[in-house]
Amino acid sequence: MKSTYTVNGMSCGHCASSLTEEVSKLDGVRTVDVDVENKRVTITSETPLPFELITNAVTEAGYELVN
Amino acid sequence: MKSTYTVNGMSCGHCASSLTEEVSKLDGVRTVDVDVENKRVTITSETPLPFELITNAVTEAGYELVN
Repeated sequence: MKSTYTVNGMSCGHCASSLTEEVSKLDGVRTVDVDVENKRVTITSETPLPFELITNAVTEAGYELVN
Repeated sequence: MKSTYTVNGMSCGHCASSLTEEVSKLDGVRTVDVDVENKRVTITSETPLPFELITNAVTEAGYELVN
């Protein structure tokens, strides 16, 4: 399945790398695609990911999950 | 001695870290202070650093030394 979220606070490719690294650690995540310019992160996963886990990963990377 | 340069292209703390890492590799560098907001990097070194070496380090980190 594929889900897209809005993330605030990213400014460059380093930010994209940090976010990708954290979200990739979550169980079941297959791919993470970060679009810094449009503040979007798209995640594909084997099963639905609890929103709370995604929020935690984004926060851990230093950014803010908006929705 | 202390020198300050203007660097274009940095957008966040990750950028500051990358630039600091590259410039710190130069022989004789004691401290590197990066001010992302004001696009400034201040370098203290034991001896004067050739401008070309600083330019190379900044370019290697992915940014542009302006002056």
